[in-house]
Amino acid sequence: MAQEMIAIIGGTGDLGYGLALRWAKAGQSVVIGSRDAKKAQDAAERVKAALNGTGIAGLENTKAAAQASIVILAVPFSAQATILKSIKPSLKNAILVDATVPLAASVGGRATRLLGVWEGSAAQAARDVMSGVAVVSAFHNLSAPALQELSSPLDCDVLICGDDAAAKERVSALIKLIPGLRPLDAGPLEMSRVVEGITALLIGLNRRYKARHSGIRITGLG
Amino acid sequence: MAQEMIAIIGGTGDLGYGLALRWAKAGQSVVIGSRDAKKAQDAAERVKAALNGTGIAGLENTKAAAQASIVILAVPFSAQATILKSIKPSLKNAILVDATVPLAASVGGRATRLLGVWEGSAAQAARDVMSGVAVVSAFHNLSAPALQELSSPLDCDVLICGDDAAAKERVSALIKLIPGLRPLDAGPLEMSRVVEGITALLIGLNRRYKARHSGIRITGLG
Repeated sequence: MAQEMIAIIGGTGDLGYGLALRWAKAGQSVVIGSRDAKKAQDAAERVKAALNGTGIAGLENTKAAAQASIVILAVPFSAQATILKSIKPSLKNAILVDATVPLAASVGGRATRLLGVWEGSAAQAARDVMSGVAVVSAFHNLSAPALQELSSPLDCDVLICGDDAAAKERVSALIKLIPGLRPLDAGPLEMSRVVEGITALLIGLNRRYKARHSGIRITGLG
Repeated sequence: MAQEMIAIIGGTGDLGYGLALRWAKAGQSVVIGSRDAKKAQDAAERVKAALNGTGIAGLENTKAAAQASIVILAVPFSAQATILKSIKPSLKNAILVDATVPLAASVGGRATRLLGVWEGSAAQAARDVMSGVAVVSAFHNLSAPALQELSSPLDCDVLICGDDAAAKERVSALIKLIPGLRPLDAGPLEMSRVVEGITALLIGLNRRYKARHSGIRITGLG
């Protein structure tokens, strides 16, 4: 595979930071984006400390997006549209990977409840904003604490939705770089509504079974 | 646990028949229900042949429901409301376990698409019809062919949704009787919308990965 340059928008948040750590550990070029350049730099320094010196960059979101071949959006649903609009002019033919889950918690509601999104899913809402950009959805069902525990193996499938097969392949290749994750093609972008919903299910299971790291595996695919 | 009497409404269909086989094999009392008593008897005979003589009964749906302490509804979404109304007067304090998935295929649409159900999910629609009955949802994500291959172990979690904890416990106990299945409490009945959606996801994965037996496991619950 060609070397990708990965920008993680919202890379100071739990999920984005966990992905940054894992890809930096795998030797990938990663830049952490944040609305606040200082916070992005601080997160990049934390990655450096956690990995004993392997450095990554931290930049304001639009500058991070401008450098990337793959842009991961890992922000709360309430910030999704605004941030997408802000980074769109900076994208240079990059794939956008949307990890947004429309949790009611993002507007003050309950963590196990989802908001209805008119377009069908947060990923489809992203596509509406990002006309002309290849949009893939993935990473909704990963436990952020599990990603951040570098010493523990992961044990999850990553369901990828999208309408651009080549873009899905490139995201799939990045997922395979993280030990314990298996990418699965979950179909067109419209299937993201189900994948986003699974996150609410996992949050409820974590609470009910006093766990923090629940994830999903698909069995029987041979 | 107390011995349950299980009626499987739609027990001549793939999912219902598979469940009947597995519970009969586990020594449970099972009756297969169908709109057509003769078809129900034929399916009961097939169970007997498959299990070398362990017999179960086959009855018209309302008669099957009248005998049961737990009624499993395993019918296409297009038949759900009509059949529920027909069996409701026959229920004798039984739990209703709804396994209905609102697949667009049930009204001639595509198998990977879902119908929107006004109540939020097929399970919640069932509850609306069945006032006064404890409604639990389960079994949506099981592969019917896998259930029917008695020689092969299963490898799936069964996500149970419902608002009656005691009813969920009783369904959970029945699930544990089938080797390779793990019951998980997936929360209140309203979470069934996510679980029902997962079925569409699994159908798509089966097609894309040329499989027939895909299922779901939740990892990280300890």
